[in-house]
Amino acid sequence: MRATGDIQCIPIGSGVSVRAEVKRAHEILEQAGLNATLHPNGTSVEGELEAILDAVRQIHERLHEEGVVRLVSFVKIATRTDKEPSLRGKLF
Amino acid sequence: MRATGDIQCIPIGSGVSVRAEVKRAHEILEQAGLNATLHPNGTSVEGELEAILDAVRQIHERLHEEGVVRLVSFVKIATRTDKEPSLRGKLF
Amino acid sequence: MRATGDIQCIPIGSGVSVRAEVKRAHEILEQAGLNATLHPNGTSVEGELEAILDAVRQIHERLHEEGVVRLVSFVKIATRTDKEPSLRGKLF
Amino acid sequence: MRATGDIQCIPIGSGVSVRAEVKRAHEILEQAGLNATLHPNGTSVEGELEAILDAVRQIHERLHEEGVVRLVSFVKIATRTDKEPSLRGKLF
Repeated sequence: MRATGDIQCIPIGSGVSVRAEVKRAHEILEQAGLNATLHPNGTSVEGELEAILDAVRQIHERLHEEGVVRLVSFVKIATRTDKEPSLRGKLF
Repeated sequence: MRATGDIQCIPIGSGVSVRAEVKRAHEILEQAGLNATLHPNGTSVEGELEAILDAVRQIHERLHEEGVVRLVSFVKIATRTDKEPSLRGKLF
Repeated sequence: MRATGDIQCIPIGSGVSVRAEVKRAHEILEQAGLNATLHPNGTSVEGELEAILDAVRQIHERLHEEGVVRLVSFVKIATRTDKEPSLRGKLF
Repeated sequence: MRATGDIQCIPIGSGVSVRAEVKRAHEILEQAGLNATLHPNGTSVEGELEAILDAVRQIHERLHEEGVVRLVSFVKIATRTDKEPSLRGKLF
């Protein structure tokens, strides 16, 4: 099932700058084959629902492997059956 | 990897009352074997990261099968490597 | 105090299309004098913390006056004291 | 206008433990006269919309005064005109 989403990952206890971790999370979303667009408070994504959720898993697993001790993600998932969900369709 | 989370599902266009859909989403989280506690703005969950994310997928798929046309989920996922994450440990 | 934020407003029970309400919410954020940029899952804002929060109040009050029966907002607020917070500074 | 809400505040760069800051945020919500109930991923609140939003402002201002360098809040606000919104009414 197709879905759109929004994913923001915040490392806790990694210092005041979180730029490196935000960049890694965005890279993982792109490598997952999702249509991914960065915005100031997250990354907008479009793709299969399973692929989006699996990318969230990958972000947590990889960032912990790379040394992040604590990680919180804020995820929005949107699906609909009346038409193909798309990021473009959510802008008026 | 163990995780804690918070999941709120909101049907759009199903009418002003969303009680039935909120109840179904909570049931799916319980049936997924997650430690699930309802609160006024979502359900707190504790379990394997993959199981939590898979439960989000199941909620979307099943509620659409049951007739919901549009669905938005707000999900928080928290993981840490310094200790076992638990819902209990997040209360002071 | 300066802040950045992200505001998404969702009417419940207004029908499957929420385009009109999303557009009104975005207009109110712009009229509030905030630097406001629409993205697929909300509007990024930059301005005084009080002005951002007051704009959330205005959205709820005005949309209800205009007939929306039920409204949920998802708001992210970010502040920092080490540098001037800006939307531009949150992109890598 | 009455509202219900959910407020989670996360300090960034304050170390892996955020217990002290979470406790302070919850105290400020209680002192604001809001009906406030802690849960694992935030505090549920019930009160006047203006009072809830003003409490968010107070949390940011006071925690920064007390030394927190960077702070992110995740806020949900719900209002409705068909009945008095209440935290109790949101549980099935």
